[in-house]
Amino acid sequence: MAILPKAVRQVIESFERLPGIGPKSAQRLAFYLLHVPQEELDGFAKHLTNLKTNTVLCSICKNTAEADPCDICKNPSRDQSTICVVEQPTDVLSIERTGKYNGVYHVLHGAIDPLNNIGPDELYISDLLKRLDDAREIILAMNPNMEGEATAMYVTKQIKNKREKLKVTRLAHGLPVGADIEYADEVTLSRALEGRRTY
Amino acid sequence: MAILPKAVRQVIESFERLPGIGPKSAQRLAFYLLHVPQEELDGFAKHLTNLKTNTVLCSICKNTAEADPCDICKNPSRDQSTICVVEQPTDVLSIERTGKYNGVYHVLHGAIDPLNNIGPDELYISDLLKRLDDAREIILAMNPNMEGEATAMYVTKQIKNKREKLKVTRLAHGLPVGADIEYADEVTLSRALEGRRTY
Repeated sequence: MAILPKAVRQVIESFERLPGIGPKSAQRLAFYLLHVPQEELDGFAKHLTNLKTNTVLCSICKNTAEADPCDICKNPSRDQSTICVVEQPTDVLSIERTGKYNGVYHVLHGAIDPLNNIGPDELYISDLLKRLDDAREIILAMNPNMEGEATAMYVTKQIKNKREKLKVTRLAHGLPVGADIEYADEVTLSRALEGRRTY
Repeated sequence: MAILPKAVRQVIESFERLPGIGPKSAQRLAFYLLHVPQEELDGFAKHLTNLKTNTVLCSICKNTAEADPCDICKNPSRDQSTICVVEQPTDVLSIERTGKYNGVYHVLHGAIDPLNNIGPDELYISDLLKRLDDAREIILAMNPNMEGEATAMYVTKQIKNKREKLKVTRLAHGLPVGADIEYADEVTLSRALEGRRTY
């Protein structure tokens, strides 16, 4: 499309590189931005430039943070002996949103996925093992899919090698709240049965 | 979510302002961008800053362009006496992509929409009327919805007021190629019947 101005084409191409944004959406976004005030564009641009320079990885939990150590790791009112292990920083947000967790986190930044060449060494697993000395419970909160399960199994084995008696737990599997039993898949329903609780 | 670094929050907020991007998508995009090289972020930022400063509105056809007049308006091999009137610059792209049109355009930048306070004066209609002297045909290519129809009616009336004999045409309505007659709505099917052609 030679008739598109280069400036518009460049913005379209930048948007197209983002996950989940196709050519049509990218075009729509670029033409939308032609109508916003220049200050807003400059602000957006500045935020993009600063995104990585103004964030760090917490040296303790490996979460994306503003300062090192992060607000959670340096918070004395949080239980530093309970460590919830998650795949991504966004998982921390989801768990924080429940308001039900008062421990700390450890972010692996991925899951073991041999098909995509991600082995244990690509994840922050050894850093987790260094944190075990003062821990009383490790909660594994990987995604309930093949990669997450494999990662949980591997991490558990590594933890037990180091401190056999340390309590390692997993998030409960079962029916999502609001779901229909009729439409639940067999695996979820089996897990819900296995994990049933007295009323 | 006080636990999100400010730099990440700002990028999320910038994305959330875009049409069709909700809080979850914005979060996903921001965390995705944490993993791209800084040069790419800087490039994205530069393209956003330059978007409006490096584009102009063609003074003839009001299309978004790199220079004034735009490539189409100053192209001697295009028929400058046939003007296709569209609502948006993106409509120009769609028609150009057909490769079947060799005339020029006029972009109204919207459609008459009283509910959203957009009247004829908010559109580039008077600029179109100034271009009528050398025109031989005006093709109305507004969207086939209520606002588009109202705009087409209004524009036709204005054109006829100025040059009663000027040929004004509309895009054909009918079945989209590849569609099923079974699932066509009544209005489309009625238009397809009315506009039937000898085989």
